[in-house]
Amino acid sequence: MKASPLSAPTLVETVAASITERIAGRHLMPGARLPSVRAFAEAMGVSKSTVVEAYDRLGAEGAIVARRGSGFYVAGKTRPLCLKTVGPQLDRAVDPLWITRQSMQAGPDLVMPGSGWLPAAWMPDAAIRRGLRQLARGGEANLVAHDQPLGFPPLRAQIARRLAEKGVEAGADQVVLVDSATQAVDLLCRFLLEPGDAVLLDDPCYFNYHALLRAHRARIVGVPLTRSGPDLAALDALMAEHRPRFYLINSALQNPTGSTLAPATAHRVLKLAEAHDTLIIEDDIFGDFEVEPSPRLAGFDGLERVIQVGSFSKTLSAAVRCGFVALREDWVEPLIDLKLAMSLGNSHLSASLMHGLLTDGTYRRHLGEVREKLARAMAPALRRLEACGLTAWLEPAGGFFLWMRLPAGVDSADVARRALARGLVLAPGGAFSPSSLGDSFLRFNVAQCTDPRMIPMLEAALAECAASAAP
Amino acid sequence: MKASPLSAPTLVETVAASITERIAGRHLMPGARLPSVRAFAEAMGVSKSTVVEAYDRLGAEGAIVARRGSGFYVAGKTRPLCLKTVGPQLDRAVDPLWITRQSMQAGPDLVMPGSGWLPAAWMPDAAIRRGLRQLARGGEANLVAHDQPLGFPPLRAQIARRLAEKGVEAGADQVVLVDSATQAVDLLCRFLLEPGDAVLLDDPCYFNYHALLRAHRARIVGVPLTRSGPDLAALDALMAEHRPRFYLINSALQNPTGSTLAPATAHRVLKLAEAHDTLIIEDDIFGDFEVEPSPRLAGFDGLERVIQVGSFSKTLSAAVRCGFVALREDWVEPLIDLKLAMSLGNSHLSASLMHGLLTDGTYRRHLGEVREKLARAMAPALRRLEACGLTAWLEPAGGFFLWMRLPAGVDSADVARRALARGLVLAPGGAFSPSSLGDSFLRFNVAQCTDPRMIPMLEAALAECAASAAP
Repeated sequence: MKASPLSAPTLVETVAASITERIAGRHLMPGARLPSVRAFAEAMGVSKSTVVEAYDRLGAEGAIVARRGSGFYVAGKTRPLCLKTVGPQLDRAVDPLWITRQSMQAGPDLVMPGSGWLPAAWMPDAAIRRGLRQLARGGEANLVAHDQPLGFPPLRAQIARRLAEKGVEAGADQVVLVDSATQAVDLLCRFLLEPGDAVLLDDPCYFNYHALLRAHRARIVGVPLTRSGPDLAALDALMAEHRPRFYLINSALQNPTGSTLAPATAHRVLKLAEAHDTLIIEDDIFGDFEVEPSPRLAGFDGLERVIQVGSFSKTLSAAVRCGFVALREDWVEPLIDLKLAMSLGNSHLSASLMHGLLTDGTYRRHLGEVREKLARAMAPALRRLEACGLTAWLEPAGGFFLWMRLPAGVDSADVARRALARGLVLAPGGAFSPSSLGDSFLRFNVAQCTDPRMIPMLEAALAECAASAAP
Repeated sequence: MKASPLSAPTLVETVAASITERIAGRHLMPGARLPSVRAFAEAMGVSKSTVVEAYDRLGAEGAIVARRGSGFYVAGKTRPLCLKTVGPQLDRAVDPLWITRQSMQAGPDLVMPGSGWLPAAWMPDAAIRRGLRQLARGGEANLVAHDQPLGFPPLRAQIARRLAEKGVEAGADQVVLVDSATQAVDLLCRFLLEPGDAVLLDDPCYFNYHALLRAHRARIVGVPLTRSGPDLAALDALMAEHRPRFYLINSALQNPTGSTLAPATAHRVLKLAEAHDTLIIEDDIFGDFEVEPSPRLAGFDGLERVIQVGSFSKTLSAAVRCGFVALREDWVEPLIDLKLAMSLGNSHLSASLMHGLLTDGTYRRHLGEVREKLARAMAPALRRLEACGLTAWLEPAGGFFLWMRLPAGVDSADVARRALARGLVLAPGGAFSPSSLGDSFLRFNVAQCTDPRMIPMLEAALAECAASAAP
């Protein structure tokens, strides 16, 4: 339980927090009986009703259980890890995990400018069906057995060729296939992190990084972002103070801001990483939406200190899971051991399907079309949002995200909650930023901003916020 | 570094272990300079050559690095997790991870009775191609977007129906799809384990459980196995002593022994789990090869304390990744949060393909054929192996494994090494058993025992062992 950052903790919160701390510190063990309400009220110098309310809250959270006629007990060990209780608790309308779920469960009745995905109609459905027919016809020798531990060699070779086009020199044997970029980052967390290790994340950044790193019990340290990459003075100081294990970054078309690392910044980031002996994981998930490839940290560095991950979920299909890790040669073997221990292997079906789409021209053609559509969608979306009183932090060079500042005094969680009640799913800034910065931003997906219902719904939600804030 | 369990540690081992402990306990931080050889020898009261040898060993393990002219330093943080150094070190011929790799990379020149997979020719290749054509034709609405967080609802409903046939009552909303049974166990480890928690495994058991649990830094406790399940008195004592978080078990057609839990044993295991507040993860990966379904712990228990996992990798295809977790209703939500954080979602393509094969009759028909083939292969394989001097620990009621005791005095790692040199890949017992028990056993896959080269190769390897053991 965490007090709201906007106000001093109440007495109930203070009492509940003192019990939570004693459970976390193992001073109160699972199964232990809590003091009676009266005894505890006397000991803490508070009223019995305050203790009752604190016990009720802890009961609702599952931290303690009431047994009829015998008092309250610390919950037993049968209680599993609950991500929601590891970090600060968010209400569902601004909880990053919940936003992911909404995006996945959306029906046609919801308008989804908060989505992190292109509309299904923009994805190459026909090409995927053609690819499946190709596999079925016998173009593919193996549809029943595991692949090599690294994954399907022709796809690894093709990915290595594509990396070279972006200036990243990697042999096919430095490319390890997994089932998604998320799984790639997860695998690398296991490879590199001890519980309690510090990890640097851009503030703001992709919300699932927070959830994933919380699951690894990492200590998350936010790096302030400028329009050309991280604030270098801050990065230097944070690396010195926290000695982070790695810095997880989108160099190209950052999520949620759409910013891209400037070449000089990339150079300086690498110098700092070297000076402080910090690794870099470069998640290039949006990189293929760039019109002109920007510098990659993995390219400058030659995969010495940088590990790159990527996938085709955003570009080809999220229903076909296929991602990769490109890393230094001497780390391939131990990473493979870990990959096998955790999953036995990636999907060969997905890998051969993706290989077909990458080599028959589908991928290049599709990317060209999507980049053009995105370029056409960006300016009108921006104009319409600005007409609602929002301002762009940056006009991105490509991709599909706009990081929009709300009118003064409007809280992003508040507007997201009110919009949701109307069927408009927004992505409130707080999900991307643990600092107060995010409270005044929303992330928009320009490809999902074409629905004519969006602007009226957004305007209504904003008007409601303004009305409730008025004296 | 770990001393051999069979002898007292040498002086060099003791010195090296004391340094390893100081590094692990962070008394010596990454980058710190180690004492000079002379100073350390004096401090420890040992000879300088002992310290040199200890430093050399730690250098070979990568724990420390020598810098020319300036001494020895604790390796920097750039060193990633290496599973091989977390637990006891095995040479490649008996290393479980290596066996997995061999199975995956085998060419037609290798004979693979140690494989954990059915031969490709036994798998339903044609049905999978038919399934792919079906998906391509438009039977499937979504080939580009993420599924619901729990996974494709029709497949979950179908899995729930199949569970009911085995006596496990679970609603479709208690079935969570993932990409393999291994991934299911991995997800549950994250859900349930803290580093250092104890976990019970059968001794012997599937070798990858050891690797996976080592990656989670669990404390593995082996449970002696009888022909009808775990030794109950030992199980009781081990649960009392180690207070394990869970017991990971194959109830039906255990890997590697082929044993199946007797109904009364199942009942007693659940009573003990309740008495000691231990959870059970029942990995039912081989369950569908049973001719008559045996009792499932998940069925007796009603998914209160038992979580069941399964997949179709062994029965339909290992190239199409699809597995599941069936668990109590109130744990579904937090498990989903973790699933999304780690992978964003399972493969919808795999799930819809599997759904097609489960509902069009392919699965039932294929299982019937495979069970019959296995039943026909079992007795001849057993006879041939017995003729080589091996004896079966148990004649299993189904499935494809035989757990064979070697002639007295033959070590399984030794025979595996010699067989490998001849192109015969065996599965030595040590990979399945951390106790000395495994040293006298090999696991055979009866479906991979039909190659006429196998017996002569095995006999030659056994003869070599006998010759080298002779005085």
